[in-house]
Amino acid sequence: MDTLDLHNPVFAAYVVAASLMILKAIAMSWLTVVRMIQVKGGYRAPEDLRRTAINPDPRPEQLAPDERVERIRRIQLNDLENLPFFLVAGLLFVLTGPSPWLARTLLYGYVVSRLLHFAAYLGARNHETRAALWTVGSLILVFMTCWTLVAAMRGAGP
Amino acid sequence: MDTLDLHNPVFAAYVVAASLMILKAIAMSWLTVVRMIQVKGGYRAPEDLRRTAINPDPRPEQLAPDERVERIRRIQLNDLENLPFFLVAGLLFVLTGPSPWLARTLLYGYVVSRLLHFAAYLGARNHETRAALWTVGSLILVFMTCWTLVAAMRGAGP
Amino acid sequence: MDTLDLHNPVFAAYVVAASLMILKAIAMSWLTVVRMIQVKGGYRAPEDLRRTAINPDPRPEQLAPDERVERIRRIQLNDLENLPFFLVAGLLFVLTGPSPWLARTLLYGYVVSRLLHFAAYLGARNHETRAALWTVGSLILVFMTCWTLVAAMRGAGP
Repeated sequence: MDTLDLHNPVFAAYVVAASLMILKAIAMSWLTVVRMIQVKGGYRAPEDLRRTAINPDPRPEQLAPDERVERIRRIQLNDLENLPFFLVAGLLFVLTGPSPWLARTLLYGYVVSRLLHFAAYLGARNHETRAALWTVGSLILVFMTCWTLVAAMRGAGP
Repeated sequence: MDTLDLHNPVFAAYVVAASLMILKAIAMSWLTVVRMIQVKGGYRAPEDLRRTAINPDPRPEQLAPDERVERIRRIQLNDLENLPFFLVAGLLFVLTGPSPWLARTLLYGYVVSRLLHFAAYLGARNHETRAALWTVGSLILVFMTCWTLVAAMRGAGP
Repeated sequence: MDTLDLHNPVFAAYVVAASLMILKAIAMSWLTVVRMIQVKGGYRAPEDLRRTAINPDPRPEQLAPDERVERIRRIQLNDLENLPFFLVAGLLFVLTGPSPWLARTLLYGYVVSRLLHFAAYLGARNHETRAALWTVGSLILVFMTCWTLVAAMRGAGP
């Protein structure tokens, strides 16, 4: 059976985890839009102060940072610092042929850690809670990548 | 025929779309460089104020944000929030074996939407235009990812 | 032999390069954390000013930018602008079946250019040094992507 076949349970687990993380990342953009509409501000481009159907009463303060919007932007930046690397590391990890048990634990564990990190950040929980959840995901990512590197160095040798 | 073979028209369409989007993303870095050279400013690192062959007459204002440079940085940040996820989502979508017609429509539609979004942002068109073009790309991404997730959940089941 | 098999030396070289770059990217997050602990500041979220075991004596200045932390954040942003695209471009390049010599030169050359770029940025070397190292990596990325695009357009044709 081909490794990158959805009948391979390890690859299918990766695709489920990756799809959930991609949807999560896209959702941050949409959540930013929702909050900008709610607070009628937090914009960034000068042209967004033009009088249009969507912004009938523009004010200069609309370009100032708004904490409700900035919070989502910080969460999104944290995603950008982590998720693209998880998406590639997870795929390469799957190609080393790990056991389904190990793969599911790491891949779904990562997804859960990121969703809880999101909840903690959105709800402004203490830094310790947010940091602990981020650390779990980051260590899973480091473990998968080191595992993959060791497997590849065996194959890449002269 | 192997799925990840360039003789597979669906995979080849993905590689064309992905390559164009990667080149587009890299171009934003180069465009930032071009504009920093044009305005002789918009720098970010304190050491960029040293007197060198490239910056013979340094001034503190060179570290202040310059709108001509900041506009490209905003466009690039928008790319970072979208393109890495498209690149992975598109690859996984291709691995679910969609029809060439559907794959080409979504993949090339995404590319066109992003190029038009770039043109609208660069030219400071109204927020509505930019937002509409971004939305087209984002919905294509959501559709591809949900399609892939459903296909994977069938394979990942117990 | 399957292309995406670690016994394929070209793919193994990609996986080694990709794993090193992923670990490098993750290391930037950890380095940011280390420096925030060292300077007891450079935080970004308002809730990080709460009195906790980790921050027993909170002060408003802890939310102000700190250059020692900001330097790592700039390096990390530069990674986000480059590495995700290298990770995907490298994989697609490998799937075009380049010679092991060419693949190793480009992939390992990219890794070396990025590690030197990191050293130059961390050590606040002159802009020219940093820019030259960034340019090497960016041109490798452009070359790999154009190579891949040409190969794919042959396969994607009608």
